[in-house]
Amino acid sequence: MSIIKPSLPKGTRDFLPDEMYRRQFVIQTVRDIFEKYGYEPLETPSIEKLDVLSGKYGDEGEQLIFRVLKRGSGLEDLLRDRSEFVVKKYSELVDEALRYDLTVPLSRVVAMYENELVLPFKRYQIQPVWRADRPQRGRYREFYQCDVDAVGSASMLADAEVIAIVNEVLSTLGFRHFTIRLNNRKILNGILRYAGIFPEQSGSVFIAIDKLEKIGLDGVKKELSQRGISNSEIKKLLSVFEISGDPEKVLSELTRSFGEISELREGTEELQQIIGALNDLGVQGERVRIDLYLVRGLGYYTGPIHESVLEEPNIGSLTGGGRYDRLVGMFLGRDIPATGVALGIERIIDVMAELQMFPTAQTKTRVLVALFDETTRAASLQFAQELRKAGIHTENYFELAKLKKQFTYADRKRIPFVVLIGPDELASHHVTIKSMSTGEQRTLDRVAALNYLSQPLP
Amino acid sequence: MSIIKPSLPKGTRDFLPDEMYRRQFVIQTVRDIFEKYGYEPLETPSIEKLDVLSGKYGDEGEQLIFRVLKRGSGLEDLLRDRSEFVVKKYSELVDEALRYDLTVPLSRVVAMYENELVLPFKRYQIQPVWRADRPQRGRYREFYQCDVDAVGSASMLADAEVIAIVNEVLSTLGFRHFTIRLNNRKILNGILRYAGIFPEQSGSVFIAIDKLEKIGLDGVKKELSQRGISNSEIKKLLSVFEISGDPEKVLSELTRSFGEISELREGTEELQQIIGALNDLGVQGERVRIDLYLVRGLGYYTGPIHESVLEEPNIGSLTGGGRYDRLVGMFLGRDIPATGVALGIERIIDVMAELQMFPTAQTKTRVLVALFDETTRAASLQFAQELRKAGIHTENYFELAKLKKQFTYADRKRIPFVVLIGPDELASHHVTIKSMSTGEQRTLDRVAALNYLSQPLP
Repeated sequence: MSIIKPSLPKGTRDFLPDEMYRRQFVIQTVRDIFEKYGYEPLETPSIEKLDVLSGKYGDEGEQLIFRVLKRGSGLEDLLRDRSEFVVKKYSELVDEALRYDLTVPLSRVVAMYENELVLPFKRYQIQPVWRADRPQRGRYREFYQCDVDAVGSASMLADAEVIAIVNEVLSTLGFRHFTIRLNNRKILNGILRYAGIFPEQSGSVFIAIDKLEKIGLDGVKKELSQRGISNSEIKKLLSVFEISGDPEKVLSELTRSFGEISELREGTEELQQIIGALNDLGVQGERVRIDLYLVRGLGYYTGPIHESVLEEPNIGSLTGGGRYDRLVGMFLGRDIPATGVALGIERIIDVMAELQMFPTAQTKTRVLVALFDETTRAASLQFAQELRKAGIHTENYFELAKLKKQFTYADRKRIPFVVLIGPDELASHHVTIKSMSTGEQRTLDRVAALNYLSQPLP
Repeated sequence: MSIIKPSLPKGTRDFLPDEMYRRQFVIQTVRDIFEKYGYEPLETPSIEKLDVLSGKYGDEGEQLIFRVLKRGSGLEDLLRDRSEFVVKKYSELVDEALRYDLTVPLSRVVAMYENELVLPFKRYQIQPVWRADRPQRGRYREFYQCDVDAVGSASMLADAEVIAIVNEVLSTLGFRHFTIRLNNRKILNGILRYAGIFPEQSGSVFIAIDKLEKIGLDGVKKELSQRGISNSEIKKLLSVFEISGDPEKVLSELTRSFGEISELREGTEELQQIIGALNDLGVQGERVRIDLYLVRGLGYYTGPIHESVLEEPNIGSLTGGGRYDRLVGMFLGRDIPATGVALGIERIIDVMAELQMFPTAQTKTRVLVALFDETTRAASLQFAQELRKAGIHTENYFELAKLKKQFTYADRKRIPFVVLIGPDELASHHVTIKSMSTGEQRTLDRVAALNYLSQPLP
């Protein structure tokens, strides 16, 4: 048999134990916080029907949906017979696709199990999603998303709560200098109305506005112009967008100047409520900034939107979310209000590694019980099992190898203690413990050894 | 916009919170035990290159591999242009597939990162796999596997250890009456040699033998005969297969009668070592049974094989594993010995649900802080946050609804306590706590309330 050179599909990754410990640390931290706020776990299948995903992610997103082939045999048929019938039959088989995000599956779930669920349905979900994207540094074709959402409440308290959760997650993970940018689709729509731009053009305008960070103000003006927005409209637009500063100031200026536009007024009132609730929830005021340029790409947002960014390094947003009151309706025929946030845990993990925010990687295994010779094998297995019964994570060395080799193994795996049972120890019912960090050895009876190994590491 | 009727692809499932709590309970139990034995976590991508998966799972398995389409656009090209060129280009794009099991990816990982890994590499992996199977009761197209393997040791201690882990997992989960069936591919090969059957026929014979439980002894005889095995060969074969009883007795009878067949002798010696080590590891002797009919379907096993079965209900194996010393070699060109076991956690979860082995489902949320009116909103948010700071899982009710509705919400979500802050409580810096199980109400100052809610539930 010829050897298959082992390799990975582009844009995918293996997570070896050291990396897994980091990922588990972040995921566990996030999960604990979600649960502390009363959110409950949900998982949905990796494979969804294509029509569930279609029409939700915009044209660009749509292109990135990974389809799957239901039966392996269809493609072989196709290679043999390229008749219209076979091609059509084949293409009909390809009507399933990999999960693209966690929000659309959540909306599907709410529509399917509406009677079983208690609304507001407060759920979190931590699962991989797939994008048939061109892989590049920091962008993968398979990556975890980590979402927390409340479905069934129109209250701004729900929006404030998910923002407070973001704040607590980032703080707990050790981030000090981050900002939560806040805006509202209703304010954006109101600004467009004020500038005299037709609703049909809004998507086009939003795309341009969203690029401010990338292309600068002049770039945005140019792009708006290319997209058919007149100079006077652009001027009007930007006069509003440039309102910035303290959130209270921005909101009162918007209300004072544009309060007659009902959608805009509604949007500012919502943000007012969110900012008030964030204050009550203990989120420091300086964390939150109103940024009228914030658009958030996806098409389904209808109200408040937000993202969190680090001051340093400038690597885009760590989290992003908002209210999407009409997505469930696409499945149910009747709207159910919803809001939530997606934590970009891949990016969070990457940044934490870069900034050395993780504690030193350390195996959870505390003891390696060496294998001295055949006569002490049984005692070694038995003592290891006693340690495990006491909750001490313990490995048995499997091979009759030189002790030096066994110590090297413990060292390379960063296991702090090696237990040795030779014929002397066996005869005296003792064990010898070697500390791998100090090299110190001590011979103790089994009970004393068990106690010693139960102590926390210095 | 027309409504998309929400539905799931066949053979896939949503896991709502109650089900998720069960799954998390089983997975956490399993993970804790794996780690107690020194196994470390690994994750691999859902998508593998097709040539990594091909030729590993037998013809039947090969048919069940789910392929994925790298770019969404290829299929549209195909529908427009069915020329040989487009079909061929398209089929070349379809060279990636979904993970079929966790053993082949592990072998790929060991071959790819051999220099980084410390051998024996003791890893566990808990991730979904996909099979393009016809879904039926208890068989899904997407399901979790849960594997624990040691790669890089030829010692039978490794085999014994994974069996001991199975024993501990099933016992810890609450299973009382299960048996671990044990056999060895080397013994099977030795029996075939004794019966004069050519190695080329072994696969065919194994398939027939494996069906004993399904089709009975007469069925096996008939099938062997249909597969071209002569009556005298069948007689010889079955005379060996029928050896059963106490493990020690089976092994000594095999050695006495067929010890001159080196492969068979080697196989019995290996099982002897495993049984000895299992005894030292505290696995009760009556748990283990040597079953010469045990084959285990997959092609890659080379030594000891095992599975665990319940006495009642008869639902097939809960776990299955064995030694596969030549799989890594398919990627590396040089063999590395390996052994492990896959826990059928989907089946385990199904059986535990059927036998009502799960504790009553209960949300982790302990307190709902009701929303009385606008004047006490801030105090309600603040007190909820105080509870969370003390580690108490707490929900805020988002809506200004009638209290009855808020109590009903707590009741339906099985949240044990509702905290109420009305104008009186606000004025006196107290809160009222209602126990949802007893209906009892008490008004306490905040510190006392916090203490009260921190107590474990009765």
